[in-house]
Order: sequence, then C-alpha cells, then structure tokens
Amino acid sequence: MKYCFLYCLLFICIASANAQQNDESVIKKIYSESLAKGKTYEWLHYLCKNIGPRLSGSPEAAAAVEFARQVMDTLQLDRVYLQEVMVPHWVRGPKEFATILNSKKIGSRQVNVCALGNSVGTGPAGIIGKVVEVKTFEELEQLGKNKISGKIVFFNRPLDATFFDTFDAYIGAVNQRGTGASQAARFGAIGVVVRSMTTLIDNVPHTGSLRYAPNVPQLPAVALSTADAELLSSLLKDDPDIQFYVQTQCKMLPDVLSYNVIGEIKGSSMPEEVVVVGGHLDSWDLGEGAHDDGAGCVQSMEVLRLFKTLGIRPKRTVRAVLFMNEENGLRGGTKYAEIAAKEPVKHIAAIESDRGGFTPREFFLEEASSGQIQKLSSWKNLFKPYGISDIRAGESGSDILPLKPMGTLLIGYVPDPQRYFDLHHTAEDTFEKVNKREIELGAAAMATLVYLLSEYGVK
Amino acid sequence: MKYCFLYCLLFICIASANAQQNDESVIKKIYSESLAKGKTYEWLHYLCKNIGPRLSGSPEAAAAVEFARQVMDTLQLDRVYLQEVMVPHWVRGPKEFATILNSKKIGSRQVNVCALGNSVGTGPAGIIGKVVEVKTFEELEQLGKNKISGKIVFFNRPLDATFFDTFDAYIGAVNQRGTGASQAARFGAIGVVVRSMTTLIDNVPHTGSLRYAPNVPQLPAVALSTADAELLSSLLKDDPDIQFYVQTQCKMLPDVLSYNVIGEIKGSSMPEEVVVVGGHLDSWDLGEGAHDDGAGCVQSMEVLRLFKTLGIRPKRTVRAVLFMNEENGLRGGTKYAEIAAKEPVKHIAAIESDRGGFTPREFFLEEASSGQIQKLSSWKNLFKPYGISDIRAGESGSDILPLKPMGTLLIGYVPDPQRYFDLHHTAEDTFEKVNKREIELGAAAMATLVYLLSEYGVK
Repeated sequence: MKYCFLYCLLFICIASANAQQNDESVIKKIYSESLAKGKTYEWLHYLCKNIGPRLSGSPEAAAAVEFARQVMDTLQLDRVYLQEVMVPHWVRGPKEFATILNSKKIGSRQVNVCALGNSVGTGPAGIIGKVVEVKTFEELEQLGKNKISGKIVFFNRPLDATFFDTFDAYIGAVNQRGTGASQAARFGAIGVVVRSMTTLIDNVPHTGSLRYAPNVPQLPAVALSTADAELLSSLLKDDPDIQFYVQTQCKMLPDVLSYNVIGEIKGSSMPEEVVVVGGHLDSWDLGEGAHDDGAGCVQSMEVLRLFKTLGIRPKRTVRAVLFMNEENGLRGGTKYAEIAAKEPVKHIAAIESDRGGFTPREFFLEEASSGQIQKLSSWKNLFKPYGISDIRAGESGSDILPLKPMGTLLIGYVPDPQRYFDLHHTAEDTFEKVNKREIELGAAAMATLVYLLSEYGVK
Repeated sequence: MKYCFLYCLLFICIASANAQQNDESVIKKIYSESLAKGKTYEWLHYLCKNIGPRLSGSPEAAAAVEFARQVMDTLQLDRVYLQEVMVPHWVRGPKEFATILNSKKIGSRQVNVCALGNSVGTGPAGIIGKVVEVKTFEELEQLGKNKISGKIVFFNRPLDATFFDTFDAYIGAVNQRGTGASQAARFGAIGVVVRSMTTLIDNVPHTGSLRYAPNVPQLPAVALSTADAELLSSLLKDDPDIQFYVQTQCKMLPDVLSYNVIGEIKGSSMPEEVVVVGGHLDSWDLGEGAHDDGAGCVQSMEVLRLFKTLGIRPKRTVRAVLFMNEENGLRGGTKYAEIAAKEPVKHIAAIESDRGGFTPREFFLEEASSGQIQKLSSWKNLFKPYGISDIRAGESGSDILPLKPMGTLLIGYVPDPQRYFDLHHTAEDTFEKVNKREIELGAAAMATLVYLLSEYGVK
C-alpha cells in the first residue's frame, strides 16, 4: 500500500513535469511561428491600407467584415460565421472648422478640432460664443447657470503624465469627453470643447465617443488639440472675452445592419467549454484604426491560424470574435453576450486585445476569484522568456464585459502602454505606427494563454 | 540585556521600514519629474536636429562635445570636464554605388548598400566580380581558395527572428560584419558584401564597424539591404555567374583629438566611491544617432539634472560620462578606464544605456557575484510600479567594459529590444523614432538605480 502511494506520487510528479515540458515546447513553437511566418502584419496592412478606417455603419466596416470572413475561411476552421447586429451610424460630414476670435494678443486663429463621436453637429452656420474654461464638473457646478448660460464650455483638465500606466492617466480625464456635453447642457451652455485625451502637446485632435444624458439638450462637442488647448487657456487668462467659433456637420443616421465575425475551432474533449479571444473590427473614421483595434482583430485571427498551422488541437473550443461597434455603441459585444447566454456551451474565459499592438507586458484579470488569479499566475514562468512579466488583477476589455454575468473569466491583453495615447482616436493611428515584431509577439502571447486555458480551464 | 536586544531589533526594523518608505518616495519624485518636466527629449532634439550624426573625428562630434559640456554647465554640478582622447577618423566619402550585373532574369539592377565602418574604399573605379554566397565561415573554408579567389564574398546569414531578444539574434549574425572581410581575404576574395543586421526585410542598409585582422589584405566591404540580399541570393540560385559592381570611396584619415564629457556630483559621505552612468556621444554618420546613442547620453545627463533639481544629495559620487568613439574604436571607454585606474577613488558601479531609448524592461549585471546579484535583485520591488521586471545576469555595455579589471560592477540598462534593429546604424535612426515617454522613463529608471547604488553601494 505504501509503495502504491509512492508510485502514484512519482507518476504524478513525472506526468506534471512532462506536461510542463510539453507546454514549453508548444509555446516555443507558437512564438517561433508567429515571429518567423506570422500573418498579423500582412493582414493588418490590408485592413489599414486597402480598407482603411471602419466606423460602424460605414461601407468600410462592411468591407472589414467581408475581409475578416474571407481570411477566416482560408484557415480551415470548424466554423466561420457572421452574427447580425444593428449598429449606430454616425457620420462626421465635411471637415470641422474652428477658430479663436478677437483675441487681443493674436487676433483670430484657426485651431485643430474634430467632432466627438455621436455628437450632434452645429450645422453649416456653426456656433459662436464666449468661452468658460473648467477643469472639473465641480467647477462647472460652482460657476452655475449665471456664468455658463449661452457660452461654450472648455474642458481643459490634462492627462496626468506622471502615471506610469497611461490608461490610468486617461481614466482620470476621459469623463470630460464622455459626459462633459450633458454636464454643460444642464447649465445652459451652447457647445463644448474638450482638450484631447493625450499626454503629448501637439496639434492632433483626438476624437472618441460621448454619451448624451436624457432630458438635457444635446450640445455639439469637439475635441481640441492639446497645443491649441494650451493656447486658448493662456489667452483666456488675460482676455476672458475671447470668442470661439466652431462648425461641425456630423450627425446620427438610422441604425444599420452589421456583423460580428466569428471563427471557431471545436474542442477535442470539452467542446462545450469555450475560450474567446477577440478585438473590435470597427474603428474611428480618422486614421486607419491600426492600433485601435486592427491589431486586436488580426492577432485574434492569428491565434486560430497558429493553432491550425501547428496542429494544436485545443481540448476546449476556441473562438476568435471580431466585435462590431466597440467605439460608439458596444452593440457587437452586447449582442454576442446575449446570444452566448442562450447557447448550450459555457464561456469559461474571454481575452480581449484592445490596447494597441505594442510589446506584450501583462495580462489583467477582471474581478477574478483569488483561485483564478492563483491558477493563471502559476503560468507566469511559462511566459517569462517572452517578456510577459505579470498576470494580475486589472481591467479586461469593453467588448467582453457583457459576458461577465455568465461567470466568464474576463482577461485583458496588456501591451506596453507608453505610445498608445499619442495616436489613440486620431489620424495618426496608421499602419506605419505598428511594429511587426511587437504585434507578432502579442499574437503569440494571446495564443499561448488561449492554449493554456483550453488545456487546463480556469478552475 | 534581553530588552536591550529587543529594542535594538525593533529599532532596526523601524529604521529599515522608514528607509524603504523614503526610497519609494524619492523614486516617485524621480519618475514624476522626468515624466512631467524632463529634459531628455528637448536635449535629444538639439543633438539630432541641430547637430546631427556625430561620427568620431567629425566636426559634428566636436559640436556634440561642446553641446554636452554646455548642458552640464547649466546643471550646477560639482565638476564638469573634458577628457582628451585620440580617436580614429573614418570618412564615408560620396554615396556608395552598387549594382547587380548581367542577371539573366532582371539584367542589371542597382541595389542599396553602404560601406562598413573602418572599411577601405574601392576607389572611384570600383570593383567588379562574380559572387560567392556563404552563410558561415565554415562554408568559406570548405569552398577554399579555388572557388573564392578573385570573387566577391556575399555573407548572407540572416538574423534569427524567432529570438525574443533581438540582441541574441544580432549576436548570432554580427561576426559576418565584424570579421567577414578578413576571413574572405584569407581565400583571395576581392571584396565583401554583408547582409544587413536586421530581422526586417527592407531596402535600408545597416552600417557598423569591421575589424581587419593583421597580415591579410584589407578588402572593401559593404552592407547590403536585406531585401536586396534576398534578391541577390535568389538570382544566384539559377545564375551563379552574376556579377556585382560596387564603388565606395571611404577611407581612414589620421587620428583626431576628441573628448569624453564628464559631469560629477560629489558624494556627501563617501565621495571616494564613484557610480558612473553613461552612454556614447559618437554615432554613425547615417541617420541622427537618436537611439544609438543620443538617448543614452541625454538620459545620463538627465540623471544628474534629476538629482540636482530634486535636491537629492548622493552619499557616493555620481558621474555622468559621455564616451567618445564607441562605434568604431572604443577609444573613449578605454581612455576613461585608464585614467580611472590612477584616480584616488573606487569605481564601485557603472551603468551604460546603449540599447536605445525604448520603454525600460530590465537591468543586466555583467559577471556580477551572486552576492551582488542578490543585493540588486532585492531592489526589484522598488522598480515594479515602473515596469522594470527584472535585475539579472546579462551583458552591460561596451564603453564601461574596460572598467572590469578594477572590480567595478557593470550594469546594462535594458529597454524593450523589439524595435532597435529596425533602425540600428541606419539613416532611419532619427529623433522621430524616439518616444518622449519611453526615453523619459528610461532616464528615471537609470536615476533610480544610481540613487540606490549611491545610497547602499554594491556590497
């Protein structure tokens, strides 16, 4: 009996060591294939240069759906399908125009703006008004209707560059863009100008979505480049009567039929458990949506290609989901979760790549149990040779968040965050800003985690 | 007695916790200052755009010396001085020209080359010859004089893109550039063409130094872009009689007087122990030497500025050393060590930043004792909030290597390695390729390690 126990223990030890060795070997193959023969860069080139920006509801978004479907069709997956979803159809219209007027110091000066996504337009006549600069909603409250009514509110709280993680800086400022328009409307403002969401000081305006609150007027809102925001702020100090003119012709059209694009490799022994890996196929209309989030899409497709090319048959089902409409509606993510809830499968984990195609650094686990954190952390050593230094609690991704009520473990793929907000939601987010090795390493990191999840689950 | 012991223990515990807290607070200040008000980016802009490339012996190298001296003079250091050093003076001359001749498939085709540093030129007439492609020196040996004499040897072993660390890929290929010319000369070759040292396939040739062995003819040698190397190799397969023409007019001139630039903050309690932080001021003549190694220079000066601005008085002496002539002679590093050996101080540690101005990842300790590795590793937690994930054994930097015999702990600052060899030693190594936050984080990481070394030493 005693010997039996010892033999069992020995067997378990050897089996576990073999598994570890096998995992290391699979992971090495994944990285080598992605770095030497990866497809992410080539696919991203097509998405950025042949299709271009892919705002929800646009013809280019439809082209992106078809492109992704065709790519997945070449991968010999078990299933490739589209999932219908109605999406908002916001259009920017002709290039926006804005100018500082009647400054004592510099007279009139054209400035760099772009409409915020989902914003109403000013119409061709534009709006003109004095400017009230604030940094917080509390300031707005203190100024009150008296000081704000009939004016343009200028939200000018900068991102705090001293955060190591630029996403923390972003989170500290982005409520100005998201809800500033409705906050200002409560006090009778006629329009809103928001400092662009970047730590850089430059001439590039950053778009991004706003959400109008119910029961207050919908004000036209634009993002102003940080250099122009600094200028406007400095002029206002001596000259509070400066006027600002802005013209935007953006508008919201009726919803349009669009699609999530899904590819699947069926699990060999536990097909009813699903691991999702995804990004979002829509992008803003400026730039090419290269980092945001062309990168996440081609990486997710590459995960499937790596499995197929290397002959890795996952134990659990693996799905790449390219979500539609993350940027200004989250309809794709919402729809996917709605349908997933009715499927006879269990979504055990979902990974989203929506922080750019930069060098991999970490994975974040959103509201995971301590057991899950412990389990996934135990894989850290497998990632160490490839520059992933941590797997820890943190935010995941917008598109997979609707899966939370189903008990899915939500995972954010976290690349190096330093460059993202230089180009986020701007005309600068182009293919040229993506480094081949960095995006390939990201795909390999994601494939590795999908592999481990499909082998070992989350419990 | 027993109580006395317990009190002592308690006191030590409290003191140690206080020290840790104080260190965290100092480090936070260092990072905040560098990210919010850092000077690295501004200084690098001057170095790249006003001065430009700074090959040893060039007027621009002299300008860089003067610029660095003037910057350091503004920092209110205890001492700023120049250290004389004679440097080689190699000049590229007019733009090189090379062409594939008489290919059956494509006729003649101009290709992208640049002379390797220290190479002799072909002279205005150029050289012409058949091409023998090899991947290793063993192949060369096997082919022997018979097959090589009178021909041009084409070294075409690519960097292995499957390494995570591109420096490992570089090390696996760079002997072709460093000693290929003399190896080929042993078998009667008339010239050498070396595939560029990058994992990318593009049209950009990468220069870099070669070293001629004594007692063999000095052959002219050029780097060929990887895209052209692929082309030439594929043509040679069907058509081994292709000829190659190359014209270079580079040459070595007599040595020139130049300088290391040194700034010093004297240690408050142990001034006789010195911590060096440095980079190299010279660069290749193509591009602007932005990542290689303008970044390391401005970061090293920034370390001193951070100490002064934040009122950090180091216990040990801190020196920023901007070395001259790393690229094609290492004369500055050699001279610094020669003089250091005679100084009445002990160089306890030296950090070099010469891997580009990318996001900080690690520090490498070269041939450190296990005690030193243990000591410095114990600081890892202080770096963790700032993305430095490891302090471990690895290579340091060329300029500080000559300090090794003095028992100095040699430390390499290791940023993310993915993009470096896209632009290393090329016309692409320009200011625009440097990200403001990334280079600032590097300066802060270096300042933090210098601070800890100056507080706690290496023992």
